[in-house]
Amino acid sequence: MADGTKDAVSSNQMWGGRFASGPDAIMEEINASIGFDKKLFAQDIRGSVAHATMLAEKCIISAEDKDKIVEGLNTILSEIESGNFEFSRKLEDIHMNVEARLATLIGPAAGRLHTARSRNDQVALDFRLWVKEELVKTERMLTDLIGAFLDRAEEHADTVMPGFTHLQTAQPVTFGHHCMAYVEMFGRDRQRVRHAIDHLDESPIGAAALAGTGFPIDRHMTAKALGFREPTRNSIDTVSDRDFALEFLSVAAICSMHLSRLAEEIVIWSTPQFGFIRLSDAFSTGSSIMPQKKNPDAAELVRAKTGRINGSLVALLTVMKGLPLAYSKDMQEDKEQVFDAAENLELAIAAMTGMVRDLTVHTDRMRAAAGSGYSTATDLADWLVREAGLPFRDAHHVTGRAVALAEQKGCELAELALEELQGIHASITGKVFDVLSVDASVASRTSFGGTAPSEVRKQIAWWRNLN
Amino acid sequence: MADGTKDAVSSNQMWGGRFASGPDAIMEEINASIGFDKKLFAQDIRGSVAHATMLAEKCIISAEDKDKIVEGLNTILSEIESGNFEFSRKLEDIHMNVEARLATLIGPAAGRLHTARSRNDQVALDFRLWVKEELVKTERMLTDLIGAFLDRAEEHADTVMPGFTHLQTAQPVTFGHHCMAYVEMFGRDRQRVRHAIDHLDESPIGAAALAGTGFPIDRHMTAKALGFREPTRNSIDTVSDRDFALEFLSVAAICSMHLSRLAEEIVIWSTPQFGFIRLSDAFSTGSSIMPQKKNPDAAELVRAKTGRINGSLVALLTVMKGLPLAYSKDMQEDKEQVFDAAENLELAIAAMTGMVRDLTVHTDRMRAAAGSGYSTATDLADWLVREAGLPFRDAHHVTGRAVALAEQKGCELAELALEELQGIHASITGKVFDVLSVDASVASRTSFGGTAPSEVRKQIAWWRNLN
Amino acid sequence: MADGTKDAVSSNQMWGGRFASGPDAIMEEINASIGFDKKLFAQDIRGSVAHATMLAEKCIISAEDKDKIVEGLNTILSEIESGNFEFSRKLEDIHMNVEARLATLIGPAAGRLHTARSRNDQVALDFRLWVKEELVKTERMLTDLIGAFLDRAEEHADTVMPGFTHLQTAQPVTFGHHCMAYVEMFGRDRQRVRHAIDHLDESPIGAAALAGTGFPIDRHMTAKALGFREPTRNSIDTVSDRDFALEFLSVAAICSMHLSRLAEEIVIWSTPQFGFIRLSDAFSTGSSIMPQKKNPDAAELVRAKTGRINGSLVALLTVMKGLPLAYSKDMQEDKEQVFDAAENLELAIAAMTGMVRDLTVHTDRMRAAAGSGYSTATDLADWLVREAGLPFRDAHHVTGRAVALAEQKGCELAELALEELQGIHASITGKVFDVLSVDASVASRTSFGGTAPSEVRKQIAWWRNLN
Amino acid sequence: MADGTKDAVSSNQMWGGRFASGPDAIMEEINASIGFDKKLFAQDIRGSVAHATMLAEKCIISAEDKDKIVEGLNTILSEIESGNFEFSRKLEDIHMNVEARLATLIGPAAGRLHTARSRNDQVALDFRLWVKEELVKTERMLTDLIGAFLDRAEEHADTVMPGFTHLQTAQPVTFGHHCMAYVEMFGRDRQRVRHAIDHLDESPIGAAALAGTGFPIDRHMTAKALGFREPTRNSIDTVSDRDFALEFLSVAAICSMHLSRLAEEIVIWSTPQFGFIRLSDAFSTGSSIMPQKKNPDAAELVRAKTGRINGSLVALLTVMKGLPLAYSKDMQEDKEQVFDAAENLELAIAAMTGMVRDLTVHTDRMRAAAGSGYSTATDLADWLVREAGLPFRDAHHVTGRAVALAEQKGCELAELALEELQGIHASITGKVFDVLSVDASVASRTSFGGTAPSEVRKQIAWWRNLN
Repeated sequence: MADGTKDAVSSNQMWGGRFASGPDAIMEEINASIGFDKKLFAQDIRGSVAHATMLAEKCIISAEDKDKIVEGLNTILSEIESGNFEFSRKLEDIHMNVEARLATLIGPAAGRLHTARSRNDQVALDFRLWVKEELVKTERMLTDLIGAFLDRAEEHADTVMPGFTHLQTAQPVTFGHHCMAYVEMFGRDRQRVRHAIDHLDESPIGAAALAGTGFPIDRHMTAKALGFREPTRNSIDTVSDRDFALEFLSVAAICSMHLSRLAEEIVIWSTPQFGFIRLSDAFSTGSSIMPQKKNPDAAELVRAKTGRINGSLVALLTVMKGLPLAYSKDMQEDKEQVFDAAENLELAIAAMTGMVRDLTVHTDRMRAAAGSGYSTATDLADWLVREAGLPFRDAHHVTGRAVALAEQKGCELAELALEELQGIHASITGKVFDVLSVDASVASRTSFGGTAPSEVRKQIAWWRNLN
Repeated sequence: MADGTKDAVSSNQMWGGRFASGPDAIMEEINASIGFDKKLFAQDIRGSVAHATMLAEKCIISAEDKDKIVEGLNTILSEIESGNFEFSRKLEDIHMNVEARLATLIGPAAGRLHTARSRNDQVALDFRLWVKEELVKTERMLTDLIGAFLDRAEEHADTVMPGFTHLQTAQPVTFGHHCMAYVEMFGRDRQRVRHAIDHLDESPIGAAALAGTGFPIDRHMTAKALGFREPTRNSIDTVSDRDFALEFLSVAAICSMHLSRLAEEIVIWSTPQFGFIRLSDAFSTGSSIMPQKKNPDAAELVRAKTGRINGSLVALLTVMKGLPLAYSKDMQEDKEQVFDAAENLELAIAAMTGMVRDLTVHTDRMRAAAGSGYSTATDLADWLVREAGLPFRDAHHVTGRAVALAEQKGCELAELALEELQGIHASITGKVFDVLSVDASVASRTSFGGTAPSEVRKQIAWWRNLN
Repeated sequence: MADGTKDAVSSNQMWGGRFASGPDAIMEEINASIGFDKKLFAQDIRGSVAHATMLAEKCIISAEDKDKIVEGLNTILSEIESGNFEFSRKLEDIHMNVEARLATLIGPAAGRLHTARSRNDQVALDFRLWVKEELVKTERMLTDLIGAFLDRAEEHADTVMPGFTHLQTAQPVTFGHHCMAYVEMFGRDRQRVRHAIDHLDESPIGAAALAGTGFPIDRHMTAKALGFREPTRNSIDTVSDRDFALEFLSVAAICSMHLSRLAEEIVIWSTPQFGFIRLSDAFSTGSSIMPQKKNPDAAELVRAKTGRINGSLVALLTVMKGLPLAYSKDMQEDKEQVFDAAENLELAIAAMTGMVRDLTVHTDRMRAAAGSGYSTATDLADWLVREAGLPFRDAHHVTGRAVALAEQKGCELAELALEELQGIHASITGKVFDVLSVDASVASRTSFGGTAPSEVRKQIAWWRNLN
Repeated sequence: MADGTKDAVSSNQMWGGRFASGPDAIMEEINASIGFDKKLFAQDIRGSVAHATMLAEKCIISAEDKDKIVEGLNTILSEIESGNFEFSRKLEDIHMNVEARLATLIGPAAGRLHTARSRNDQVALDFRLWVKEELVKTERMLTDLIGAFLDRAEEHADTVMPGFTHLQTAQPVTFGHHCMAYVEMFGRDRQRVRHAIDHLDESPIGAAALAGTGFPIDRHMTAKALGFREPTRNSIDTVSDRDFALEFLSVAAICSMHLSRLAEEIVIWSTPQFGFIRLSDAFSTGSSIMPQKKNPDAAELVRAKTGRINGSLVALLTVMKGLPLAYSKDMQEDKEQVFDAAENLELAIAAMTGMVRDLTVHTDRMRAAAGSGYSTATDLADWLVREAGLPFRDAHHVTGRAVALAEQKGCELAELALEELQGIHASITGKVFDVLSVDASVASRTSFGGTAPSEVRKQIAWWRNLN
């Protein structure tokens, strides 16, 4: 015994505006994906061509049907690319839009294309192909960005600037060395991108609805035709899996975090107070009233993008939480997150590559800042260890007294008299002044990966070779 | 001494496709907000009308200029509403698009509109007005959803079903009572929405760029004209603040979590194994091959929306983290998150309201499930406490033995013979059977907020009065 | 027909180290909550006292039993507070730890305490009481922080500093005005805290397992005794609801975002390049080698806490996603997130209150920065509008030319000769110099909420009255 | 000119309770990390031994000093392992705790250990070593979990069950096949773990504070001694980088999402309505009153852990957002997130491995469910395509009519008479019944990765070979 369904009329009356036409309007709006999955049209058609070709090869459909299907699909591809295709929300998604058009174009043969497949493996294929292409594009863009930094690093291998910890001057470094820190970050991102490609490089098509199929298909053939390493090994997992999307998003989130750090530095370094760099006009906005003002809008927006991409990662992790196998409709929420993150990551990388290439470096402001604040105190301590044989902790103590004296006298360490230094520790000789200048400090740090220009140039060469 | 800017030509060559035209294309794409902030056109124009009116009232502009401005703005409003307005990305945002058009329409007087304001307070105003309206709409939609549940609760105040903990049958409850649990949840959401409105009900206009203005404006007048309780009290905070957006998102996130729980129950209850409910055709999708199959797509998508909305909340919290005062361009990332969350929350509430109104309740399946699994064991224990004076923990022990016996005999508790029960504890009398039926169990729980139909009806009446 | 259970021996061999003793060790570790929920001991005991008192009042237990129970509970409270209570993980949680001890202390009467309640409503009560108390504490701490800012604002109502947008100098403001921006932010946080208290102010006890109870309890009596406004209205919702925890976390997340902005400003302002402030020794760390170095560690850690608290919010939102009613064990993951967020929010507020009270303001550095960078260009434009009747957009254009001239001459606007200004626009008179100084600029912005010292003092007075 | 510092006394009065002793108590609490970083003691000591050995090898310290240092460090290791080490919060962190104790044990030589290093590279080393070891442990645990699934898959390669989409019965699959879907998921997780190890396998030690060092250290030697592939290539990046922690967290988040899906299935399958499985006593909790009730607490908690781990990922991504190079104190918030995620991921994997090994499979309930709901409708459609040459879309239509007829008659497809089927489509022959049984359906799906037992056994063999 079951109770009756509520009168649809009263429901209709309830909803105004956007949902005025009642349940059907709501259902169509929440259910249809064509608004965003049309982005997958090229992948969808490519996958169908490969599938039809295999079906014919395995004699599951006839060669003639295959030819008609492929020709029809190519026509549809042209129509979409040229903007002459009318997408229908009633047909829900890209797959049905293409298939319906195919039926119009070639008749009953269109109905044979869906043999031995399902929308579940079809969408898995389309989306995986898209993500793979996006990863390849990201890899190339990261290579460009690394290239931009390598150029600036080479140009500024000798440019001294303050090395910061806690945004306080700590020790002098070179701007080239600082640039190479970002090369390492984006190099790691690129490595993660490559492994993400490696992880997803399996073809879903042929998993069918979830159980595989009894048709004698050859999944290795379609995998090869579509450029995948191999087919996936479990049909239930294949239609349930969105790891490739999550891995894209997590790689993107870490990369965008790196971009946000760079953006923050650009914002801070562009202030009149720091004045280390000046952005090009192309990447800053002025004010009609304050022509000297260059707002680092692009850098700020890149900094903000990390929020957006983190949000997409959280969104999809949350969507996938606790979904029973195999396909659930929840998974339709995967694409917009990835599309949005991809679009914004591309934009952020492109903007940063442009900013890095175009920014003007105020080497004089950097040098001045590097030389103030007793930035070579560590060099004095190291000298005491090396030349006078003090334990490091004792050397620190002596140095502290020297800095205190200099501070009291309002001068830098190199400006103290030898006698004053000897008054603090008798073992100090005139040779100490060799290490107290910013250039000497920087040049001395020749440990592997250190800031010495010679070392920075070695790393540039290593990366040039790799890039 | 500063180094030169890199040649733009090489940069141009580097970027292909989307950014082929180089830095300017990238900058325009990352910087322009018109693509999404055009949604604020009505608020922007409303704000400008109020501002111009106040400027004229305070003799900062002439009445003639005000009239021209207001007339021009009304023309623009009509143009946009009728789809006859061409938005330009070169003009960046909705404010400049409107202002540029105003200049075309009315000439130099247009230049007086921006007196004593800035885009910083203007966007704060537009967005706040939009969020306030959205909150009002959300409040109304929640009231509809609560109404749908009150109707079903009334209809099913006596319908017994299993009450679950850990998704295991625990005690019988009524479906009406279960519906009322959602009334409480969405009632709390509505209360949070109301307080969110209360928190944002201050007018930003007049904060100008960040410091206020020297023009003798009257911010109370514009606040009143725009329906705000009062003007904001600190101009720096006013242009830096996006709490109202974050509060909208956190309220939406909690609400969508509630919707996801309801969605999960609909998905589980619609399985053939549970079979408690049947969705209407309007809110499920069939299969051309399996007509009996009713996929709960709409419920699954509502369940997934919680990921999306959580993602938007995380996005904006991350964007705002560590931003120095006052306005930073990062904050431009606020709108898309709120727009997307609002659109999807509306859709999810509308879909759920429809599903709740339309679903068929299989009362027989519910009753059968409610009566199995010794669901009235607690009633036996309570009877022992009440009638036989056992301490609760001892009563538990006795009940455990009774259930074990029933399990061993493959029957329910009510099917045990009185002698069998007395064999377990001598104090048991025939009256015990009064509490072992599902209906008796449910009817007995008359504590405030309990599942007894009488109690459920009291709560329905309380909410009807409120709703 | 069911298959057999795998041999436990092989399982045991599989797990090494932490789980060496096999499934039982794992289950105990994942299941027991006493490690963290012992924090609720005072609330648990308070709730039990109220419950027992009501049971006796309603003649559900005897007065003697009630007295024994209350006395026993008070003994346990003393034992725990004095560190003389041994918590047992075998007993899983705080409720069973207390109840088991009560049985030891008072014998069979202990078994009557659990009449008409369940661990489900008991934990909901304990946790809600805890969150309510934490909110009250947070409210008080925010009041302290607001007080610290009011003091500094009063002290620096006239101290000029640059007002930034995009971290570029925009217009002069006062440091007092800047402090008041934070008063607004923390004032909004406090308002949200108060509403969060209002939203949770309902007593869960008496909901029992999920269905209410047949015992003639009086939930209004326990609600009153425990300081709640009223009892909850639906027993299923009561044991399923963690909105109060989520609302605490979202309020905390927004508040910690505010703290992170303040922290960022402290970090940037403490650099030698800005030099606007100097942290006290108490809230910075030095270096044995660079005594002049003051690392803003506390501010950096406060900035980082926003990540932690956002993480807790995401964690609980994710946990609650898609949970069917009523209680599920997933919900046990609620407490650690809230405890951690509360502890860190308290710490961050306390640290910031201390930093704000103790920091030294370098008013000279602020004034110098405020006066550079043509920060009064807007004042010139406004003067042209006001005194010369130019439309605002035209005034902007004229001002742009004046700034360009000053930049070319390497001077500030106020240092241009009157003739030079008149060469740009003939209507300029000597009176213009009255608005070109930083002090004049600031003093002129008397709009409600503006930066004029007079206006700032009004707002301080308003808040003093409120605080 | 700077204003004075506020009187500490008033501050002290302000803070009650936890911060009663004023700023110093707050600073110590927010700043000290020893409470959690003591977990790194073994890594810290191992790193120091390698560093000291290299220093001696390169003649930077004497062999005697090295011997004393190593002996002292080994003593400290024993003291900590045996619980005889007193950690001090005044000494802030694990590094200073160890170094201070070393000074007590061996005197001045201890002061030479910190030559050519800093806490910045030291903590980067310790934490990276810890994460690497955790990843290795995770890899091994995932291998155990995969092994558990391989065993159950082998055992149940022929056990039919319903394959679900949208939690509705779609097509029959085998339980072995379903198990293998999880093998694929956890296999991908393991692959990500291995690549994460590969990505972090670089030694940070020798980067010093941020600039490298002038001492003639050999970073390849320490890298080799500590089991790293090579040293890091940029000292600024080295002390700024927490990618390895973020990558651990993102890998953990995806893995825990998989675990949550499995947990959800266990919860649903354990309901009386599904009854597909029964958890062992070890992994469920009973009720003293309802002995038949087996709550899947462990599965629910595993499901919830995904929230916690997502939260940690969000926390650290947020912490790292926008941090300028090089080290900032914000980064101290990295460890607790990783420690907590690691502990909970281990626990979740161990619990799931135990549950999978121990659970009882109700093959009869699975088979009954698999055979209902017209689950072989697709097989009929495929038969029509294959044997009768119908286009797939037409075959679907015919099948739909057959299902409708069966539904109307209240029987399954295989129970329809041949004539009835032929009445729907004349080409149907008696052979069709060969594909309408659940076993025939499953056996027929022999496509690569399909559900046919023969295919499932091939995949098991492939994984056995790999595992």
